[in-house]
Amino acid sequence: MAEPDLQIDDEIDDEIELDQPRLKLVRTALDERDSMALDDLLEPLHGADIADILEQITELERATLIELWSGNIDGEILSELDESLREEILAALPAEDVADAVRELDTDDVVDLIENLDDQTQAGAILGALTDIDRVAVEQALTYPEYSAGRLMQREVVVAPSFWNVGQAIDHLRTAEDLPEQFYHVILVDPRMRPVGHVTLGKLLSTAREVPLSDIEEESFRTFEVTDPESEVAYAFNQYHLISAAVTDADDRLLGVITIDDAIRILDEEAEEDILRLAGVDAEESLSNKTLGVVRRRFPWLAVNLVTAILASMVISQFEAVLTQIVALAVLMPIVASMGGNAGTQSLTVAVRALATRDLTGANVWRIIRREVMAGAINGLAFAAIMSVVGIIWFDSLMLGAVIAVAMVINMIVAGLAGVGIPVVLEKVGIDPALASGAFVTTVTDIVGFFAFLGLAALWLL
Amino acid sequence: MAEPDLQIDDEIDDEIELDQPRLKLVRTALDERDSMALDDLLEPLHGADIADILEQITELERATLIELWSGNIDGEILSELDESLREEILAALPAEDVADAVRELDTDDVVDLIENLDDQTQAGAILGALTDIDRVAVEQALTYPEYSAGRLMQREVVVAPSFWNVGQAIDHLRTAEDLPEQFYHVILVDPRMRPVGHVTLGKLLSTAREVPLSDIEEESFRTFEVTDPESEVAYAFNQYHLISAAVTDADDRLLGVITIDDAIRILDEEAEEDILRLAGVDAEESLSNKTLGVVRRRFPWLAVNLVTAILASMVISQFEAVLTQIVALAVLMPIVASMGGNAGTQSLTVAVRALATRDLTGANVWRIIRREVMAGAINGLAFAAIMSVVGIIWFDSLMLGAVIAVAMVINMIVAGLAGVGIPVVLEKVGIDPALASGAFVTTVTDIVGFFAFLGLAALWLL
Repeated sequence: MAEPDLQIDDEIDDEIELDQPRLKLVRTALDERDSMALDDLLEPLHGADIADILEQITELERATLIELWSGNIDGEILSELDESLREEILAALPAEDVADAVRELDTDDVVDLIENLDDQTQAGAILGALTDIDRVAVEQALTYPEYSAGRLMQREVVVAPSFWNVGQAIDHLRTAEDLPEQFYHVILVDPRMRPVGHVTLGKLLSTAREVPLSDIEEESFRTFEVTDPESEVAYAFNQYHLISAAVTDADDRLLGVITIDDAIRILDEEAEEDILRLAGVDAEESLSNKTLGVVRRRFPWLAVNLVTAILASMVISQFEAVLTQIVALAVLMPIVASMGGNAGTQSLTVAVRALATRDLTGANVWRIIRREVMAGAINGLAFAAIMSVVGIIWFDSLMLGAVIAVAMVINMIVAGLAGVGIPVVLEKVGIDPALASGAFVTTVTDIVGFFAFLGLAALWLL
Repeated sequence: MAEPDLQIDDEIDDEIELDQPRLKLVRTALDERDSMALDDLLEPLHGADIADILEQITELERATLIELWSGNIDGEILSELDESLREEILAALPAEDVADAVRELDTDDVVDLIENLDDQTQAGAILGALTDIDRVAVEQALTYPEYSAGRLMQREVVVAPSFWNVGQAIDHLRTAEDLPEQFYHVILVDPRMRPVGHVTLGKLLSTAREVPLSDIEEESFRTFEVTDPESEVAYAFNQYHLISAAVTDADDRLLGVITIDDAIRILDEEAEEDILRLAGVDAEESLSNKTLGVVRRRFPWLAVNLVTAILASMVISQFEAVLTQIVALAVLMPIVASMGGNAGTQSLTVAVRALATRDLTGANVWRIIRREVMAGAINGLAFAAIMSVVGIIWFDSLMLGAVIAVAMVINMIVAGLAGVGIPVVLEKVGIDPALASGAFVTTVTDIVGFFAFLGLAALWLL
């Protein structure tokens, strides 16, 4: 793995190097209030790249950019923008620009824009700018539960009766008005508008006109109910390589369609959330947050950690007598806790991801726990051997070597057990294991590590 | 965030509950060697689900499944299977089943299958099973660098000369043979086969026959060179919401096309890699690994951690004199190190993800470092205040409270600095920051934490 990684990282590095001049030039143009230069720089860029620039400059620079740039912050840029900046940008834009921007968006993107706004005046202004049809669609979507399929779907669908043949479908498409900007499938519906299958445009184009649509249906067809959680939808898109999927109401009638770009966004957000939460960072935190926002978001996790660290210290304080007599224990005790903590974090991370991807289930959980405990025991024995030698050489005490070795084996076995067991239990009781497991697991390995090491020392060395 | 999370987790939980009976039934059928029951259970499943089942049962059960199931392990199941299991399954399958399986795959999937096989006989057998045309395509793809666009692309493309109109393109598609299974765009090429744009099938179907193709080109058109790293490709698919993109040789001539499903796989793998590496787990590790495989993969990181823990212990051993006199220091010192380590891990994780998503660049790195250091200082002050009170109450010593408070502020400022600085420097020198930052950052916070706390104690308390 090492070599290709280096190569890829080099390339990324080059990219960042290449990107730097552009961002630097934008900042220079803003600094010099040179709107011509600014236009030249921004004009060729994709909305996603302009959103990235807005995220990387300061609030003052953003205001200057909006003032100087002759282009407009359009709907695409707003959609791509980090949620934490949307309100600031919306507040800075003239009302008619906001109206223009939101009118170009698909209804699912408007929903995404509105649902995270704290400012109800802004939400109202956006709704007011929409056509009546779109507004009804957006308001309808907002009645579905947050993080549900209904919030992700667009209402614009392309359907054909399932009894049609290829020729009828093609003729219909060629004369239809108001087709969506992007679509990949024609959804087949029964007379009650219930989706029963779909055909790809590629198949449609390459099949003889008289062939019934039902003969060229794709196996990949799947539907979701409008209240299904978005995590279900994202999982299915990833697992079954879907490009689009129909969304139905409780009576199985077609309401809309979810496309791959929405599913990718959710998959992306979920992976990001897991990474951040495992490190005790609020999943909503972003690089655009200001210092105090970061302080506020990081504080709770650090507070939890302080409590667990104090718990571990209380364990240590039970052994003050032995610590006073053998100061080497104070020197070595963090090693036992640290090795347990790291081994526990390894098991934990594997377990949290396996739960997220649904590879870890009731059917194999015992096998995985057994595996992790065994792995902890074997690595524990290996490091116990190394550490007992270190202990003997460093402090010239055979018994001290034995104490650290046994404590390390115990702690690494516990690490394997806690690393898998704790996230599984948290998931069972409905708490996101990525959010809370880390604190529990390192608390366990700290306490067990200090207790085993100092306890054995008190028994064997005094 | 709390409520919707709970709701989603509940649903996932339900899903796992629902899944359990299926997996349990499969295991029962295997146990009872009931091939009828097995067929009934597996027949309706998607290949991805069968692959999941194979990953969740034991090696013995897999062999029984292959023996008993009247269905075949087809190409789709092989593609979906975890890499660590492919060789085992391929070895267990009759040669003609392997041949049948690989012949149904697109060339990019065959490349994916072969490139990770250690067993060259298996690779040879797979290549031998292909048609001459496919074999040449696969062998060609394998000449491109690992993790490059060339390995991801499929050779099957749909093209049209850029001077054609809609009618000509439709007529061509309707009479063409050998169209790919899935395609979303028609790529427009110039007379030298250089891709110059693309049109969606939806636009093609809804546009009048006499309109030139160049009038309905999509803005989303992008090309990659065959040697571009796959991480670049995945980034662009995500950033610009691409569905497919053309791949060219060094002379800009069309070689193939990469589709969204390949890009999702890479995005998924990269996020997974970052999560696992941040926790010191080998990115290739999987739930199907056996105990000894896990032991071997986890050992190096634990060894690195042992070295850094010993370094921290050496710092402590410099202060044996003061520890002997004031045993409370041994009780409290893990708290300072632990708070620094957690604050550092928070900053680190944010920085590693921002580097991966290219939100952290040379243009804003100083602002982010300043922010993290400030956040560390402010949270440090808050926790210093709390801890000094705890220190005074617990050990009835004002000066001890002052020592722990000042040490904590110092360590949390250093945590912010190291948390951003170390991954940025590693990225600069071409090392994956997710892989190595964790060890460096916690080493720094351990050493600084112990040194500041015990050093101040030696100065102020003796």
